[in-house]
Amino acid sequence: MTKIKKNQTKVVKIGNVTIGGNNPVAVQSMANTDTRDPKSTIQQIKRLEKAGCEIVRLAVPDEKAAKSIAKIKPKVSIPIVADIHFDYKLALEALKSGADKIRINPGNIGEQWKVKEVVKECKKRRVPIRIGVNIGSLEPEAEKKYGRTPKAMVASALKNIKILEELNFRNIVISLKASDVLRTVEAYRLLSKRVNYPLHLGITEAGTPKSGIIKSSVGLGILLYESIGDTVRVSLTADPEEEVRVAWEILKSLGLRQKGATLISCPTCGRTEIDLIKLANLVESKITAIDKPITVAVMGCIVNGPGEAKEADIGIAGGKKSGVIFKKGKILKTVPEDKLLSELLKEIKAF
Amino acid sequence: MTKIKKNQTKVVKIGNVTIGGNNPVAVQSMANTDTRDPKSTIQQIKRLEKAGCEIVRLAVPDEKAAKSIAKIKPKVSIPIVADIHFDYKLALEALKSGADKIRINPGNIGEQWKVKEVVKECKKRRVPIRIGVNIGSLEPEAEKKYGRTPKAMVASALKNIKILEELNFRNIVISLKASDVLRTVEAYRLLSKRVNYPLHLGITEAGTPKSGIIKSSVGLGILLYESIGDTVRVSLTADPEEEVRVAWEILKSLGLRQKGATLISCPTCGRTEIDLIKLANLVESKITAIDKPITVAVMGCIVNGPGEAKEADIGIAGGKKSGVIFKKGKILKTVPEDKLLSELLKEIKAF
Repeated sequence: MTKIKKNQTKVVKIGNVTIGGNNPVAVQSMANTDTRDPKSTIQQIKRLEKAGCEIVRLAVPDEKAAKSIAKIKPKVSIPIVADIHFDYKLALEALKSGADKIRINPGNIGEQWKVKEVVKECKKRRVPIRIGVNIGSLEPEAEKKYGRTPKAMVASALKNIKILEELNFRNIVISLKASDVLRTVEAYRLLSKRVNYPLHLGITEAGTPKSGIIKSSVGLGILLYESIGDTVRVSLTADPEEEVRVAWEILKSLGLRQKGATLISCPTCGRTEIDLIKLANLVESKITAIDKPITVAVMGCIVNGPGEAKEADIGIAGGKKSGVIFKKGKILKTVPEDKLLSELLKEIKAF
Repeated sequence: MTKIKKNQTKVVKIGNVTIGGNNPVAVQSMANTDTRDPKSTIQQIKRLEKAGCEIVRLAVPDEKAAKSIAKIKPKVSIPIVADIHFDYKLALEALKSGADKIRINPGNIGEQWKVKEVVKECKKRRVPIRIGVNIGSLEPEAEKKYGRTPKAMVASALKNIKILEELNFRNIVISLKASDVLRTVEAYRLLSKRVNYPLHLGITEAGTPKSGIIKSSVGLGILLYESIGDTVRVSLTADPEEEVRVAWEILKSLGLRQKGATLISCPTCGRTEIDLIKLANLVESKITAIDKPITVAVMGCIVNGPGEAKEADIGIAGGKKSGVIFKKGKILKTVPEDKLLSELLKEIKAF
């Protein structure tokens, strides 16, 4: 079985999570609560942790938000990334509050002494900086020279990297996000040939789940398959827990991470004689609670089902008013349709 | 802007749809109605046509189903593919009924004279054959030699291709489906180096929409990005219209096809002051009816929104109780929050 080899990027520590090198691709998301409200932010982070989020980013629009991190941090177990726009003072305040990583573009901070202050504080606290290049906020010279292209995104990143490297700072993570798959993929491919800093993957403003899940799966899927990417954030206009779920599914689909049960189920066809869509959804809702890796099949055809889903650890195949339970392709027993679900769950438990 | 170049595969005509070569990647699905019931099958095909389905497959489990195709065909405008398991008589009957393509594996038909009969009839009617290799039903020798691997999938396909080529039949389409991304991708990559028949892409038994959309987007996305694939079918345990929608979104995300409006919208963050999730979903539901290509942005931040979404033809960015309408990044006007949606729709109409 093929496995995707990870690119050997630089190892970077973000609080208690290590990315880069041979470390697993980490799942992250961003809270959409008001960071100045520690209570609701802590609650959301706890829900995100439960969903499998491994790093969480918080917006830091002002000093109060920066200070709020100090209240949030002791109550949560995953590292916190402070998202800063321009203001070096907010970066310093967030660092003081215990932020485990800051996202700031040094090219936007202003005078060099301000950049130096931030870098000095990050060095002291061993906190990495993510340079977050976005197609909507490119470095003006890069945009002028190359337009809104992957080349301009890479040039913007390189300019920001240079600023940090000249201050002898290399504790860096980089992202290069466009709202479309093609430019995002090309930008990361180009940059990954130039630097070996760990890359944070994402399609920005991907949209609502309806189209955003597809754009993110296609874009991140292509890059991860090419061994590019050390941490991922799926951006959706939705509850951030959904971002985490999607990120995990992408990583699972490529064998890069394992988490819980995997469902395989056939599309129904003119041969199907049971309500397979309903049954598959029921099974799916029941197996989401499982945290061991197990593959469960729900098939519509008693003749072909068990054979086609030989790979599954456990499965059911429905026929007319009854179905079979099978294990690795071998039929264990026949049961009436209304007992299929309960018998399957019993077998899963035994497994 | 990079564009994906299509592989120069052989051109194959399926009724009024041509695939392969430089032809656009065609979207297909499979009806899950009983083919023996022409009325409900016609109704479903009409819904699928409306959703953008370009080729539809029907299960042909018996003679009645094969004959039913003759009743369905005159009432629908997209080509019909007859899905046959083993039985050459059903293939002949489906061809007589006007099927535009048949999916059958010659290696499973049995005695050579039966294969010859089917091939003769396909030649006479200029109807292509899809060889559909599935990880669950590999050629026994291939599975014995290579296990359930991409190599076995390719060997199974090559064996079936050889049977047809020896009868001087080359009007062939091939699919190689596994229920996981890695084996599916590897199988198609291997085969595309060996033959230049058009390839029908799909991840089989991908599951319910929840995980199946992600698996299909990742798998098909990787292959299409590598120029592999002439027609796609997303398999979901769901209404087949959903398969069509997802297929289109995958193709759109890679710039391979254009269809209707594209929504970009930012994930909300701690800076967002309007109910962006609700607004984005509302906008999305309103723009699905548009069939001209237009990019619409829904952004949460009045300061960064218009700039970050400069690419969008039209957009809105929400602030505190009011928002702005922008066009290619330039702000047109400020409107109160409750007017944002109606003003945006007005501007879209004008565009």
